[in-house]
Amino acid sequence: MIVGKVVGSVVATRKNANLLGNKFMIVEPFKGMNSQNGRIVAIDNVGAGIGEIVLVALGSAARIGCDMANAPVDAAIVGIIDHSIGLDG
Amino acid sequence: MIVGKVVGSVVATRKNANLLGNKFMIVEPFKGMNSQNGRIVAIDNVGAGIGEIVLVALGSAARIGCDMANAPVDAAIVGIIDHSIGLDG
Amino acid sequence: MIVGKVVGSVVATRKNANLLGNKFMIVEPFKGMNSQNGRIVAIDNVGAGIGEIVLVALGSAARIGCDMANAPVDAAIVGIIDHSIGLDG
Amino acid sequence: MIVGKVVGSVVATRKNANLLGNKFMIVEPFKGMNSQNGRIVAIDNVGAGIGEIVLVALGSAARIGCDMANAPVDAAIVGIIDHSIGLDG
Amino acid sequence: MIVGKVVGSVVATRKNANLLGNKFMIVEPFKGMNSQNGRIVAIDNVGAGIGEIVLVALGSAARIGCDMANAPVDAAIVGIIDHSIGLDG
Repeated sequence: MIVGKVVGSVVATRKNANLLGNKFMIVEPFKGMNSQNGRIVAIDNVGAGIGEIVLVALGSAARIGCDMANAPVDAAIVGIIDHSIGLDG
Repeated sequence: MIVGKVVGSVVATRKNANLLGNKFMIVEPFKGMNSQNGRIVAIDNVGAGIGEIVLVALGSAARIGCDMANAPVDAAIVGIIDHSIGLDG
Repeated sequence: MIVGKVVGSVVATRKNANLLGNKFMIVEPFKGMNSQNGRIVAIDNVGAGIGEIVLVALGSAARIGCDMANAPVDAAIVGIIDHSIGLDG
Repeated sequence: MIVGKVVGSVVATRKNANLLGNKFMIVEPFKGMNSQNGRIVAIDNVGAGIGEIVLVALGSAARIGCDMANAPVDAAIVGIIDHSIGLDG
Repeated sequence: MIVGKVVGSVVATRKNANLLGNKFMIVEPFKGMNSQNGRIVAIDNVGAGIGEIVLVALGSAARIGCDMANAPVDAAIVGIIDHSIGLDG
């Protein structure tokens, strides 16, 4: 997983039917996090708002761990960080 | 998922039988998106045209979430973006 | 998926039994393709030769989409490109 | 897998229910390790503490290999390194 | 898959039970190979020794293709290269 900050969101009216009802948040990985150069669009599994520091799961973990095994989802916000040790941002 | 712009397409007459009937679009990830240095070829699950800004799912999410569990597909356009907050491009 | 050019091949006499009978081609991703810095070794699912421009599926899509669900294969050539729009190489 | 050093941890009170009971450690990959630019948040499967050198499994291996197939986990500390040959750090 | 050279190994006495009995080799990807910046720790499925040039499978292919579907393994040496065309190292 990586830690990042929710910095925005996107809306897609026309989309895959398995995505209905989801919110798509833009997450900026913390500097120093394993990030492949940039931002990720993640579904929100925990009610995160813009500005919050979140834990993001990537890959098959996002859809299977969030009870959306059949949705085309490869990233999900799965926690909101409230304490940390050694996290550089 | 990432957000990108559809910039082209490719045609492969000779291909894996499980890919028949698909369109292969070239997507340029938005600057600042998690992109591993470049463009992706994605199947089109929502009728996206060249120039449109789209949501792309990567990995097993692409084939399983688009009802193509047995096709060699690792990227799919799963939404067309019509509104956004905080999306840099 | 990504688009690349077949630039070589490797032979491994001693290998995992589930790989028997496969050809292992070296594919150079096109410049500007999502490539994580370099070449990939992919099995050949469509009879591609050196010098051909091909479509490569990565990850679980490669083995499941090519009817090799139990083989240690993470990349497969699944199409030979004959037309394209907007493909930089 | 990669080798890294445990450098911190994060706590998320509000999180996906399938993550309850886990510890989330921040792992800094060793220089020269396959790291996509940075740190990873991994669950701790072996009782690793801050400062220890660990083996981290990524992707579906993390959740399936740690008996958490339904949790949104994409990285797990699966071993504590006590000897090595040729490991640069 | 990628091609690399076995350059070392690690030992973890304390580890996930599903990893028992495996050897963990450090593989240095060949220059020009798709490598995300560095070395990988892979289990050895074919009896590779330090200095040998090997084929490495990544992701779920490593555990499923090596009959270790339930182990936290994301990389495996699955072949020893004895001939090649167009392989730069």
